[in-house]
Amino acid sequence: MQIVVLAGGVGGSRFVRGVLAAYPQARVTVVGNTADDITMHGLRICPDLDTMTYALAGAIDPDRGWGLADEGWRVMEELRAHQAEPTWFNLGDRDIATHLLRTQMLAAGHPLSEVTRVLARRWLGADSRVELLPMTDDRVETHVRVADPHSPSGERVVHFQEFWVRLHAEPPVLGVAQVGIERATPAEGVLAALAAADLVLLAPSNPVVSIGPVLGVPGVREAVRSAPAPVVGFSGILSGRPVLGMADKLLPAVGVEVDAAAVGLHYGARSAGGVLDRWVVDSADAASLARLRGSGLAALAHPLLMTTPELTAEFIRAGVAGGPDGDRALAS
Amino acid sequence: MQIVVLAGGVGGSRFVRGVLAAYPQARVTVVGNTADDITMHGLRICPDLDTMTYALAGAIDPDRGWGLADEGWRVMEELRAHQAEPTWFNLGDRDIATHLLRTQMLAAGHPLSEVTRVLARRWLGADSRVELLPMTDDRVETHVRVADPHSPSGERVVHFQEFWVRLHAEPPVLGVAQVGIERATPAEGVLAALAAADLVLLAPSNPVVSIGPVLGVPGVREAVRSAPAPVVGFSGILSGRPVLGMADKLLPAVGVEVDAAAVGLHYGARSAGGVLDRWVVDSADAASLARLRGSGLAALAHPLLMTTPELTAEFIRAGVAGGPDGDRALAS
Repeated sequence: MQIVVLAGGVGGSRFVRGVLAAYPQARVTVVGNTADDITMHGLRICPDLDTMTYALAGAIDPDRGWGLADEGWRVMEELRAHQAEPTWFNLGDRDIATHLLRTQMLAAGHPLSEVTRVLARRWLGADSRVELLPMTDDRVETHVRVADPHSPSGERVVHFQEFWVRLHAEPPVLGVAQVGIERATPAEGVLAALAAADLVLLAPSNPVVSIGPVLGVPGVREAVRSAPAPVVGFSGILSGRPVLGMADKLLPAVGVEVDAAAVGLHYGARSAGGVLDRWVVDSADAASLARLRGSGLAALAHPLLMTTPELTAEFIRAGVAGGPDGDRALAS
Repeated sequence: MQIVVLAGGVGGSRFVRGVLAAYPQARVTVVGNTADDITMHGLRICPDLDTMTYALAGAIDPDRGWGLADEGWRVMEELRAHQAEPTWFNLGDRDIATHLLRTQMLAAGHPLSEVTRVLARRWLGADSRVELLPMTDDRVETHVRVADPHSPSGERVVHFQEFWVRLHAEPPVLGVAQVGIERATPAEGVLAALAAADLVLLAPSNPVVSIGPVLGVPGVREAVRSAPAPVVGFSGILSGRPVLGMADKLLPAVGVEVDAAAVGLHYGARSAGGVLDRWVVDSADAASLARLRGSGLAALAHPLLMTTPELTAEFIRAGVAGGPDGDRALAS
């Protein structure tokens, strides 16, 4: 069984661990968001790809939820002593080795997908069931337009990382743009994986800055739409709030209500020009499923908390199998 | 009083600490060797400049003699886990912050001299008496041609760092080249400092791979030759052996005997086309001074061990003042 998962970082990696637990024989291709990527201190940093790799390797710091466990901070302390900006983005010592390797390989002309493969081989081993692909080898960066009373224009555009890590997603969001996305092409393997998949899953990652950019790479949305496999999406909005992250700050800026059903409608049914066959929401949002009537989306409500890989696997299997309302079973 | 010192790394920095102790009112411009510089893991590393900066800041590791005290090795451990070559060159975590900053500034278009100034300001403060200049802003690298029985040609060319750190200076040396030196120009400030100096000193650094490259940058040798100040050199060869480093392996490859007087003759007297007015050797080499007769060099024998800055200061003052044999006092 071949499964393709479109995913962001922290939530996406928990979801993929659930997918692996749900389908112990399956091979899983993860198409990861790279629009969070950023260059700092001359290092090319891919937060979502690294979070995915570290998490699947069991090497992620369980308390912080990002970065490596057993991490050191000597380089960062020293950069701070140099007053080398940005000092608001923490880079662990072990993590920096990843970025050094990536930056050097990119400078030598290797595409990000090849770099990602090398890093994944080290962390996951050569016989891993997971293949991690960046959505694109091209540079795409999410920039957020925020209100800024100190700016003459009353607004300012910042990199997503600055919005999230430095500004704690506090300033009102006026707009979101994925810079460079219109010229990006899907990384080698992405379209082929979608065409060959037995099942396509959208992780409950941020619809605006994680899943949004992946689908936004020209050709990816079309490949999802035309994939022979069923496409099932899972809501990261539970009871009107994101489980993780700051989607509640970003969804309104793209005209989407912070509501599980609204996000499902935002993705849309493949039968009506969208990318999903079924949308799975949390049990707490069962009532909102009524809003999907007429959308063409099959839908299911189920507890969606990703507390453990086993609980995550359970809701993934349930979501894929379909509900008692008779929507077709999408995979066995 | 303005003093210019041409210097390498470990020995050079001990010597400069002696100069500062000997002349507490002087301003000292150090022209540092950059031909040891190397790019590893995408980081531009300037071992001699950094050793000088760290040592003058009192931040150098006293046991290793290089790198920062209170250093960590997490990045390096991780690079080794990635099998990211070269793994034979140790980079400390704190040290890596220096290299990140330098690499980034160079990539942004700043010349090495500006980068060096920024780093020195952090480590030595804005009011330091020392100005550290790289010999050149251009890329110059010492390559060593060594015997290699496993190579079809019987030889191999390696970067100086590989020769010294990885091969422990063990293979027979067939030749030494400073790649790029013929196209290099002195860094901003080097020629002006030599022209304005009250005293020019050659540290007892390696004549082949430290002082050699500094003098080899087109224009520097001529500026030393025509400097209005006296030029005094100090031998790093004591009793036929280098106090530090591997000059004994390299001198024969450039046709110079491993002997204090022979090195003095290699530098030569300014009155006879060389760069020195006086050559100072260790007391143990007093007998060899006879070999300097007719060379035009004034000479002096004095204990030259750089055990403490104070002892170093003593021999520097003695060397500069001149000997009881009546050679002219070069500075007060």
